[in-house]
Amino acid sequence: MNDAPPPPAGRAAADWLGEVGFDANGLVTAVAQDAASGRVLMVAWMNRESLALTAATGFAHYWSRSRGRLWKKGEESGHLQRVVELRLDCDGDVVVLRIDQAGGIACHTGRESCFYRRLEDGRWVTVDAVLRPPEDIYRGGLPHGDGHGSR
Amino acid sequence: MNDAPPPPAGRAAADWLGEVGFDANGLVTAVAQDAASGRVLMVAWMNRESLALTAATGFAHYWSRSRGRLWKKGEESGHLQRVVELRLDCDGDVVVLRIDQAGGIACHTGRESCFYRRLEDGRWVTVDAVLRPPEDIYRGGLPHGDGHGSR
Repeated sequence: MNDAPPPPAGRAAADWLGEVGFDANGLVTAVAQDAASGRVLMVAWMNRESLALTAATGFAHYWSRSRGRLWKKGEESGHLQRVVELRLDCDGDVVVLRIDQAGGIACHTGRESCFYRRLEDGRWVTVDAVLRPPEDIYRGGLPHGDGHGSR
Repeated sequence: MNDAPPPPAGRAAADWLGEVGFDANGLVTAVAQDAASGRVLMVAWMNRESLALTAATGFAHYWSRSRGRLWKKGEESGHLQRVVELRLDCDGDVVVLRIDQAGGIACHTGRESCFYRRLEDGRWVTVDAVLRPPEDIYRGGLPHGDGHGSR
């Protein structure tokens, strides 16, 4: 019943981004989950540009609040995240990325996941091993600040 | 090498909360994941009190930013979340809850997960079915605002 012509490709791309509810700082929460194991690997932030780049390239890009710049996950560490699936929540302000994690390491501490501490009897206990020492990962010095996931 | 007596129990409880990096609004991001399937069901917020209650009771409690109050997940819908495991990330400002989801429904739309839209060819496509109509879940009217997950 709609005789209007389909929108041009550029408009279509803008539309899906327009449905995303970026907050007052222009950010959404992004959860990266291992596509095979289902493990939650890290949680970080995306602005409009990083979300658009993630969709266009198929590799996760985030926004670093502390450094005030876009970063491609793995740009320093090599721990790229290839996106298998991208989902949006009911409120439109959180995305979940199901990804393939290069190197099997998402955390800047050299662990598979940033969530390596478990609450046990009123204490946070580190229950996951370091798979690769951070000094091996970052030859030019450790990343610092807003360190959700390795650079 | 430390001869100091162990801290009293009250202090120990405060200590694990003290390691959590609440933001300027006193909140952390909380990811609820189905303990069995690994599916990410919802993402919401917790303040210190809701995190403490979650740990103490074994049931997820969140903080509603729009309503400015604590809510026990499932208090209206019956869709309680029993916590199987609680983890903290490297920066201390995100928690992941592995939970058993009562009724198999986390979303206020009556779906299993709030992440029921998938990006396909530049469009968000609803790919998950409504398991129970919201009007059946909420007899006293639908919840509104800050609706991460059902009430």
